Amino acid sequence: MKKTALILGSDSDLPIAEKAAAVLKKLGMPYEAHIMSAHRTPERTEAFAKAAHENGFGAIIAFAGKAAHLAGVIAANTCVPVIGVPIKGSDLGGLDALLATVQMPSGIPVATVAIDGGANAAWLAARMIASSEPELYEKLLDEKNKMAEAVAAKDAALSL
Amino acid sequence: MKKTALILGSDSDLPIAEKAAAVLKKLGMPYEAHIMSAHRTPERTEAFAKAAHENGFGAIIAFAGKAAHLAGVIAANTCVPVIGVPIKGSDLGGLDALLATVQMPSGIPVATVAIDGGANAAWLAARMIASSEPELYEKLLDEKNKMAEAVAAKDAALSL
Amino acid sequence: MKKTALILGSDSDLPIAEKAAAVLKKLGMPYEAHIMSAHRTPERTEAFAKAAHENGFGAIIAFAGKAAHLAGVIAANTCVPVIGVPIKGSDLGGLDALLATVQMPSGIPVATVAIDGGANAAWLAARMIASSEPELYEKLLDEKNKMAEAVAAKDAALSL
Amino acid sequence: MKKTALILGSDSDLPIAEKAAAVLKKLGMPYEAHIMSAHRTPERTEAFAKAAHENGFGAIIAFAGKAAHLAGVIAANTCVPVIGVPIKGSDLGGLDALLATVQMPSGIPVATVAIDGGANAAWLAARMIASSEPELYEKLLDEKNKMAEAVAAKDAALSL
Amino acid sequence: MKKTALILGSDSDLPIAEKAAAVLKKLGMPYEAHIMSAHRTPERTEAFAKAAHENGFGAIIAFAGKAAHLAGVIAANTCVPVIGVPIKGSDLGGLDALLATVQMPSGIPVATVAIDGGANAAWLAARMIASSEPELYEKLLDEKNKMAEAVAAKDAALSL
Amino acid sequence: MKKTALILGSDSDLPIAEKAAAVLKKLGMPYEAHIMSAHRTPERTEAFAKAAHENGFGAIIAFAGKAAHLAGVIAANTCVPVIGVPIKGSDLGGLDALLATVQMPSGIPVATVAIDGGANAAWLAARMIASSEPELYEKLLDEKNKMAEAVAAKDAALSL
Amino acid sequence: MKKTALILGSDSDLPIAEKAAAVLKKLGMPYEAHIMSAHRTPERTEAFAKAAHENGFGAIIAFAGKAAHLAGVIAANTCVPVIGVPIKGSDLGGLDALLATVQMPSGIPVATVAIDGGANAAWLAARMIASSEPELYEKLLDEKNKMAEAVAAKDAALSL
Amino acid sequence: MKKTALILGSDSDLPIAEKAAAVLKKLGMPYEAHIMSAHRTPERTEAFAKAAHENGFGAIIAFAGKAAHLAGVIAANTCVPVIGVPIKGSDLGGLDALLATVQMPSGIPVATVAIDGGANAAWLAARMIASSEPELYEKLLDEKNKMAEAVAAKDAALSL
Repeated sequence: MKKTALILGSDSDLPIAEKAAAVLKKLGMPYEAHIMSAHRTPERTEAFAKAAHENGFGAIIAFAGKAAHLAGVIAANTCVPVIGVPIKGSDLGGLDALLATVQMPSGIPVATVAIDGGANAAWLAARMIASSEPELYEKLLDEKNKMAEAVAAKDAALSL
Repeated sequence: MKKTALILGSDSDLPIAEKAAAVLKKLGMPYEAHIMSAHRTPERTEAFAKAAHENGFGAIIAFAGKAAHLAGVIAANTCVPVIGVPIKGSDLGGLDALLATVQMPSGIPVATVAIDGGANAAWLAARMIASSEPELYEKLLDEKNKMAEAVAAKDAALSL
Repeated sequence: MKKTALILGSDSDLPIAEKAAAVLKKLGMPYEAHIMSAHRTPERTEAFAKAAHENGFGAIIAFAGKAAHLAGVIAANTCVPVIGVPIKGSDLGGLDALLATVQMPSGIPVATVAIDGGANAAWLAARMIASSEPELYEKLLDEKNKMAEAVAAKDAALSL
Repeated sequence: MKKTALILGSDSDLPIAEKAAAVLKKLGMPYEAHIMSAHRTPERTEAFAKAAHENGFGAIIAFAGKAAHLAGVIAANTCVPVIGVPIKGSDLGGLDALLATVQMPSGIPVATVAIDGGANAAWLAARMIASSEPELYEKLLDEKNKMAEAVAAKDAALSL
Repeated sequence: MKKTALILGSDSDLPIAEKAAAVLKKLGMPYEAHIMSAHRTPERTEAFAKAAHENGFGAIIAFAGKAAHLAGVIAANTCVPVIGVPIKGSDLGGLDALLATVQMPSGIPVATVAIDGGANAAWLAARMIASSEPELYEKLLDEKNKMAEAVAAKDAALSL
Repeated sequence: MKKTALILGSDSDLPIAEKAAAVLKKLGMPYEAHIMSAHRTPERTEAFAKAAHENGFGAIIAFAGKAAHLAGVIAANTCVPVIGVPIKGSDLGGLDALLATVQMPSGIPVATVAIDGGANAAWLAARMIASSEPELYEKLLDEKNKMAEAVAAKDAALSL
Repeated sequence: MKKTALILGSDSDLPIAEKAAAVLKKLGMPYEAHIMSAHRTPERTEAFAKAAHENGFGAIIAFAGKAAHLAGVIAANTCVPVIGVPIKGSDLGGLDALLATVQMPSGIPVATVAIDGGANAAWLAARMIASSEPELYEKLLDEKNKMAEAVAAKDAALSL
Repeated sequence: MKKTALILGSDSDLPIAEKAAAVLKKLGMPYEAHIMSAHRTPERTEAFAKAAHENGFGAIIAFAGKAAHLAGVIAANTCVPVIGVPIKGSDLGGLDALLATVQMPSGIPVATVAIDGGANAAWLAARMIASSEPELYEKLLDEKNKMAEAVAAKDAALSL
C-alpha cells in the first residue's frame, strides 16, 4: 500500500497531526511524519516533495497555520495529491490559514479540509489510497457503518 | 482508468464545470457529468453516490454555491474521494459556499479547492487517479513542465 | 397539539438543545428529541424527515455546527417547517454554521435563528404551532408580557 | 386560509419582494403588501404588528437591508411568526443585514432566510401555514416533486 | 446642563455601562440610567425616547449586543443625538452588534463608537453637550492634557 | 448657529460629501468644506482641528476610505464632536474604513455612521447642533414627519 | 544605487505592477521586472531570490493574488527585504491575498502594503533604499511636499 | 549602524514589543523605545517622526491595536521606513488593527507585518538596515541557517 506523509510546518501543529496519525493507525495505513517548513527549510521541503512519488507516497498531508504556504509549496514540487490542514492561530480563528491553503492557482491544487481538521485529512488520504486498495475500501465502508451505529447508540441513549 | 464524475448542483454552475471538463479532456481522462441537487433531488444524488464506487468512479467533483451541501451529501454516501468546488454567488463572494464545503465533520471529508476553482478540481482528481496510473502521472509532470515554460515565456516577453 | 422535533447533529450540541427543551416544557408543548447526522446517518435522518408530517410534527428544530447541513437535509425531505440553529465551534465563532444553515437555495427554506440560539428556536416553533392553537397563542402573549415585566423590574432595581 | 404579510422596509426592496409574491400567487395563498419602516414609520409598523394576529395573518415577511431592524421590531410587537429577508446593499454583500436580522435575543425570534432570499421566505411562510391546511401541504409536496423533475430534466439535457 | 441617558438593552451590559458612568461622574455631568429593550419593552423604550428632549436630555447612549436594534429604535423616536455602543457577545466578537448599530438608513443616524466602547460613548456625549457649555469644554481640554501627560509619564518610565 | 465642517480626505470622496452638503443646505445650516489629508497634509489638518472650536464649529464631519485615519486625527486635536464617514473602496466594501474609523481608543471618540453614509453624517451633526438651537430641533421633527409621510405615500401607491 | 525587483506572480498582475514601475521611474530608481510563480516556477523563483543580494537588489516587490505565497517564498530564500502586494481577485476582495501575504511566521518577514497597493510598494522600497542614499531621501521629502501641495490645491479649488 | 525605534501606542503593547527588542538585542542592533500615541500625544509623536532621520533612525516600528493609526501618523511625518505591528484586541482578533495599518493611501506606505508579529517587525527592520551593513547581513544569513537547523533538529526528534 502507498504511504501517507504527515508534514508539520511547526512542532506546535503536533496535537492536530496526532489526530491524523490515530486515524491512519486505526486503518493500518503506513505513514511517515516530518517537521519541515516552507519558509525555514525550503530546500528540505522541496527535496522531500520531489522524491515523494518515487519514494512510494500516495498522499501528503501538510499542517500549517497563519500564512499557510506549506501545502502549496509541496504541491508545487510533486504531482502526488497534497492535503492541506489549516491550523487555527490565536487571532483570526484559522481563517488566514484556510484562505492561504485553499485559494491555490489553477494547476497546483491543494485538497483542503476543515480548520484543525487533522482526522479528516487522514480520512481523505484513506479514500484516495483506497481507490486502488479494495481491502482498505472495505475497511472504510466498515468504519462508516460504525460511525452510523455510534450515532444511533447515542440517539438511543439521549435523554432530553 | 477510473472515471471522474462532475456533479453540478444547478445549471448555473456550468461555466465553472466547463473549466474542469476542459482539463479532464486535455488529460484524456474519462468523465460523466450530471445535474443533481442535494436539496431538490436528494434521492437521485444519494443513489448516484452509493453506486459510484462500483460504477468505476475514482473521484467525484461537486459544484455548489451558497449553503453548498452537495459535496458533503455525496461524501456521506460513498467512500470515493469527493472534491468540492465552492461557487461564488452574488453576495458574499463565495465565502458561504467555501465554509459550507470545507468545514466537514470528522469521518466525512471533502477535498475543497478554491472558490470557482473548477480547473483545479480536475487537476486534483487527476493527481488522485494518477496514483495508480503511471502514464497519467507522467502526463501530469509534463503539464507541470509546460506551465513552467509558459511562465518563463511570459517572463521573457515582459516589458515593464 | 402538533409535536416539535429536536434533532441534534451531535451530542456536543446538547447544552444548546437543552435551552430549547426548557422553553418547550415551560409552554407545555410536546416534543421528541433525537441525535441524527446528515453525514453519518443520512438514511435515518431522511427517514425521520419523510415521516415527520404524518407522525404529527408541526416544526423540526435542527442543531448543527461547522458545515451545518443538517437543517437543509431535513428540509429537503419534508414540507414541515424546519428551524436551523447554527452551533458555534472553536474557530470561526459560528459564522460557518450560520452561513451553511441560512443560505439555502430557493424552494427549500430553513428558518434560521441566532448562533447558539437554542431558546429562540423553541420560541419560533411555538409561534408557528400557535397559529392554529389559540391557547398556546395566549400563553405566548403572556410570556411576552412577563419578559417585559422582568425587564421593568431590572430597570427599577438598576443602580448605576 | 391565514394571510401572509409582505412588509418592505423601503421601495428599493421591491424586486426581492416580487419574488416572494410570485411564490405566494403560484400557491394560491392570500397576502397583503405594505411599505413600512422600523425607523421612519415606527408607529405604523407597530400598529400593524399588534393587530396582525386578529387581522388573520399567519406569517409576516419583512424585507430590510443594512442595519435591518424591521423584522425584529415587528416580532417585538406580535406573536405571529416573523420571517426576515436580509437585503444586500452596495457594500458588505448583505452580511450587515443578515447579522442584524438573525442575531435576535431570546424570546423574540426572527426566522431568517438567505440574503435576498425573497422566494424562500414565501416557501417558508407556506410551510408554516400548510401545517393546518392539508390542501396547501399537498400542493407543497407537488411543487417539491416538480422541482425535482425540473432538475432531472436539466440533467437529461446536460451536454458537458 | 443637559442630562445624558444611559439605556442598557440588558443587565448583562452593566460592566460596559459602568465605564460610561465613570466618565460622566468624573466630568460632573448629570445622567440617568435605565434598562429598556427594543424587543422586550418596545413601548417603554419609545415612550422614553419621545419624551427625552423635553425631559432635558442632550445625548442618549444605548448599549446593546447581537442584533443591536436599541440605538436605532431610540433614534427613530427622538431627534436628540443617540450614541450606540455595540456589545461583544460570545461568538462574532461584536461584529454583529457593530453592523446592526452603525449601518442605519438615511435620516435616522446613530453615532456609533467602538465595540464595548463604554467610556468613549461618554466622552462623545461630553463633546456634544460641551458645545454649549464652555466650562465643560474647558474640562475636556484639561482631561485631554492629562491623558497626554499620563502617556508621557509612561514613556519616561518605559524600560525595554 | 454653530458651523459644521466637511473635511474630505481626498477629492474622490466628493460624491458622498455632496450628500451631506445637500442635507445641511436643506436644514439651513452653515458649513465649510475642505480637502485635507491625515497623511499628506497632517499639519493643515491639525491646525484646522485645533482652531475649530474658536472658529465656531459645532461639529466636524470627516470622510475617508481604506485606513481611514482622518476622523481620528482630527478628534485628537480638538474637543469638538467629530463624525466619521467610512468610504467604500474597490476591495473590502468599506469594512477597512469602518473599523479604522470606529475602533478608537478611550478618550478620543469618533461618532461613526454607516459606510458611505454622507447624508446621515449631516443628520447627526444637525441633531448635535439642534440641542441648543430650538428652531433647528423643530425643523428636524418636521423632517422626520415628512419622511414618515413619504413612506406612507409609497405604501399607499404600492402595487405588489 | 541598489536595484529594486518587481516580481509578478502572473501577467494578470501587470496593471498593479505598472503603478509601482511608474513611481520608481519618477524617482530615478533602477529596477528589473520578472514574471515568476511560487507554484509554477518554484526553482526560478528561488534561484532569483538566492542571488538577489549579490546581484545588487536592495528591495524585492512581489505581486500575487489568492493564496499569495510568492512574497513568502522569496523571503524564505534571501535576507533582502521583501515587499508583498496582495492582489484583489474576483471573489473575496483581496482578503485572501492580504492574509496569505502578511501573516508570515517569525523570522521570515514580508513587508505588506495595501490590497492592489502597487504604488505604495514602490514608495516603501524607495524609503528602504533612501536610508543609505541621501539624494534619494531628499527626493522623497520633495515628493511628500508636492503631495501636500497637490492636496492644498484641490482644497483651494473645492466647490461644495 | 542606524538605530531602530520601537514606538508603543500604549503600555499594553509591551509584551509584543518585547519580542521585537529581543530580536534586536540578539542581532546587536541599537534601538530606542518610547510610548507615544497618535491620538493622545499627537504632537510628541509627530516631533519624534520629523526628527527621526537626522536622529539616526533607519527604521521605525509602531505597535498599535484597534483603529491603529500610529504607524500611519508616523509615516506621514518622515521618509524613514515605518513598520506597523497590528495588535490583537479582545474582540475582532486584530483584523481591525491589521486593516487600519495596512490599507494606507498611495505615497505614505506602512510595511505591515502579522498580527502581534513583534519579532518579525524586528527581523524586517534588520533586513532593511542590513542592506548597507554587510556584517549584519551575514548575521541574518547565519540566523536563517540556525532556524533551518532548529527545524531539522525538531524533525529528527519527532515521534509521531
